[in-house]
Formats: sequence, C-alpha cells, structure tokens
Amino acid sequence: MLCVGLDPVKERVLAAVGDVPDPVLTFNRAIIEATADLVCAYKPNFGFYEAMGLEGLRALAETIKLVPKPVLVIADAKRGDIGNTSRAYAEALFDQWGCDAATVSPYLGRDSLQPFLARPENGAFILCRTSNPGARDFQDLLVLEGEKPARPLYQVVAERVAGWNEAGNCGLVVGATYPAEIREVRAIAPDLPLLIPGVGAQAGDLEAAVRWGVDAAGELAVINSSRQVIYAAAGPDFAAEARRVAANLRDQINAFRRSG
Amino acid sequence: MLCVGLDPVKERVLAAVGDVPDPVLTFNRAIIEATADLVCAYKPNFGFYEAMGLEGLRALAETIKLVPKPVLVIADAKRGDIGNTSRAYAEALFDQWGCDAATVSPYLGRDSLQPFLARPENGAFILCRTSNPGARDFQDLLVLEGEKPARPLYQVVAERVAGWNEAGNCGLVVGATYPAEIREVRAIAPDLPLLIPGVGAQAGDLEAAVRWGVDAAGELAVINSSRQVIYAAAGPDFAAEARRVAANLRDQINAFRRSG
Repeated sequence: MLCVGLDPVKERVLAAVGDVPDPVLTFNRAIIEATADLVCAYKPNFGFYEAMGLEGLRALAETIKLVPKPVLVIADAKRGDIGNTSRAYAEALFDQWGCDAATVSPYLGRDSLQPFLARPENGAFILCRTSNPGARDFQDLLVLEGEKPARPLYQVVAERVAGWNEAGNCGLVVGATYPAEIREVRAIAPDLPLLIPGVGAQAGDLEAAVRWGVDAAGELAVINSSRQVIYAAAGPDFAAEARRVAANLRDQINAFRRSG
Repeated sequence: MLCVGLDPVKERVLAAVGDVPDPVLTFNRAIIEATADLVCAYKPNFGFYEAMGLEGLRALAETIKLVPKPVLVIADAKRGDIGNTSRAYAEALFDQWGCDAATVSPYLGRDSLQPFLARPENGAFILCRTSNPGARDFQDLLVLEGEKPARPLYQVVAERVAGWNEAGNCGLVVGATYPAEIREVRAIAPDLPLLIPGVGAQAGDLEAAVRWGVDAAGELAVINSSRQVIYAAAGPDFAAEARRVAANLRDQINAFRRSG
C-alpha cells in the first residue's frame, strides 16, 4: 500500500548525488532501485519538475520510464480544466508521459473530469479533502442540498465521484493529516481507492490513515510518503536510508492493516 | 481588454502553416505578429502544449518570448497544490516560463494560493465561476455560513479572494457563458480584475460579459477568445483572418464599454 513521492528539490538532490550530469534522474533512479520492491506506486509531483523547466521535465520523462512493472506511476498534477483542455491534459499525462493514474481537481465539475473518467485503463484520483491547513477554507464549507442536512463540501465531492465511477477507475485524495475526514470519506465511498498523502513531513497519523482508509477487505488505500523517504538522509547514503525508511513504513502499514 | 488564447491543436495548426519544422511556434508567431497591437494579453493554455510532450513545451517557451511588451502573458494552467508544491508551480510559471500572470484553482484554500498572492509583480486569476456546463456541479452548491443567507460556493470564493488580495495582484475567472454570475461576482469584488473566457466557440454573450464584467470606471475586465480568433480560417490565410476577427472583437468590446 506504500507509495513514494518523487518530489525533487534541487539543493537536496545535489547534496545527495553530488555533481553529476543528470542529478534529478540519477537521484530518482537510485530511489527507485532501492525501493521498487517495497511500493505499489511512485507519485511524481509535476510542480517540482516544472520548476526546473524543460530540463526538469526531461528528467521526469526519463524517470517514469524507469519504474518497473507492476509498480504504478501516479501523476500528481492536480489538473482540472474545461472539456477540450481536460482532454489535452489526459493525453499529456497518460499518452505523452505514460503515467498510469493522475490526481485531478474537482472544482470545474463532471465535464472537466470526463476525459479522465472515460479512460478505464487509467486511474483518476479526485481531490477530496487535502492534507494542507487551507483545506478547511473551502472543502469544509457546509453545503445545503434540498432537504438533506448540511454537510461539508468534501463529502459532497466524495458522493458525486462515487456516482460518476462508471468505468471503475476513480479514487479520492484524502490527507492523512485529517483522520476523521478519512473515516467520513470511506463511509461515503466504500469501494473507491483512497490516495492518502501527508504522513511523514506533514505529520499525518499513519495508524489512523491505514485504519480508516482501507475498505472492508483491508484494501484500496494508497499511503503516500515523499520527503520522509526520499530525503531520509542528506548525503550519499540517501538511497540506502530511503530503503530503510520505506521498509519500516511498509511494515507499519501492514501491521496496522492486520490489527484493523 | 481583448485577450487571445493561444491553444494549439496539432491538426488545425498543420492545416494552417503546412509542413514546416516548428509548426506550433510558426503558427503562434504569425498570430502574435498579426494581433499584438489589438490585445492586452495572450493566454496560452498549458494543457495543449503538454499534450504534445517536450516538443510542445519547447514551442511554448519560445512563444512566450515572442510576446512584445507591454502585452502580458497569462499562463492558463489552473494549478493548485499544497504550500511547498504551489511554490514550485509559481516558480515554474513565472521564473521558468516567464509569464506575467497565471490562473489558479481555489479548491485547496488560501495556503495553496499564498505563493501566488505573495508575488505582487505577478497576477493570480483564481477560478471562480468557470465557463463550462459542469461549473454548476460544485461552484453553484449553496453554502451556509453562520447566520448569513445561503449562497453559491463561487460567491464565497469571490469574497474570500477579495479579502486575500493584500498585494493587489488577484483577479477572478468568470465565464462569459454565465452573465448573471459575472454581475454577482463584480458586485462582490468591485475592484478585482475579471478574466472572462467563453466568448466565441463557447458562445458566451460578449455584450453582457463586457457590461457586467467591467468595474465602475469601465475597466478591469479581460475578455478572452481562443478558437474564434486563432482558427478564424482553416488555411494559409489564418493570420489575416485572426486579425480581422480580433479587430472586430476589440471594436465590439470598446463599443459595449462606451454604451455601458
């Protein structure tokens, strides 16, 4: 259930790999070689690559090619646009970059998600209750619909997405920093995979994330850690330390699943 | 007040410029040369470039460099992520790509917008009421806050963004396809620039967009047209036809401003 976020920050990458020709690719290759047998997916966040311009995007393209099957690549891109542009983004993330799944934003509504929903071979994790403090600003606003009791926006998003999951390829993003909300989302969407970032550097509660995140069969939760794993050590032993931390996380996750 | 969207679709670009080495760049260059004196901004939507992979992104980088001052470049990227990633996206759009402003999604809340709010030299247009049919799904949900009467989510977004505009660099995106909503947003945020897409191919009402979109002084609306202008003709006369349509749009906009 462990997913490792591949979020390169130039200074930290250089501290790890030193002065080499392709520092980001070298760093990612070492992380992937050290952890691929421990994870179900890698999640590159596109922002970090775009911040390095074309050079960063080239490293991203090469990184995605390095991920061995059956490990999945989740494009953490949080795209969301009107229909014809959303189709372009789906083509970019799946056909051009070759990712297996992607994160998408719900704000523009169903037609903006449709190009992602229409690709059963690719997963779409829709942002629901994110891991950041500002998640409260809009996602927790109380929504009034007809005769129903008022409930937070993120719960409406979860319910809608569960209803739109005709191709069986939808999931939801729920931050590990909000365990009570994970529990609510799991109750609303018992059959959807949940992508749960925010353990580690963001201090989310791993045990609660696993306990409330899994479905009735103890499955369908993807627990993501980025900085805690890939920057486990600041120097040349970064890959070995990443493996140690990732193995530890995986063991903890599996222990919490069994005790759940 | 006219903004032209530079949204290249491969087949249409090839039909226009023929078999040349850099078709997208050749197409964009011709459009920019033909229309730069008629517009206040160009708005490349990143999705179309990303759909062409690294080659498309290289054309985007070159296109942005071609835009003559004082014409602005609005990165239509609709990004939105947690704090450290949002900072990476702001760096990407402004420092790497050299855009002047960008569109951003509000779903993750204030801290996700902060890296954009904190750059007074760069504009941030926050999605409010978008131009697509699915905009209704979440943006129109009725929100209950304390004793206030219930109102649609997009109005809460407009009010919050107006309050967060400390650096004076915020604007809102409101689709021309929903004139009544433009009027509501303008009432809530009398001093914010509005970016209004959806005239032309999306059939928004140009007169209503201008009339309700401008501020009290008849300013601060940016009216975007993409396909209507850049694909005005399907063949080699595309640039001349784009100029004709853009000039016509500009004249109509100015007439509606005067009569407003």
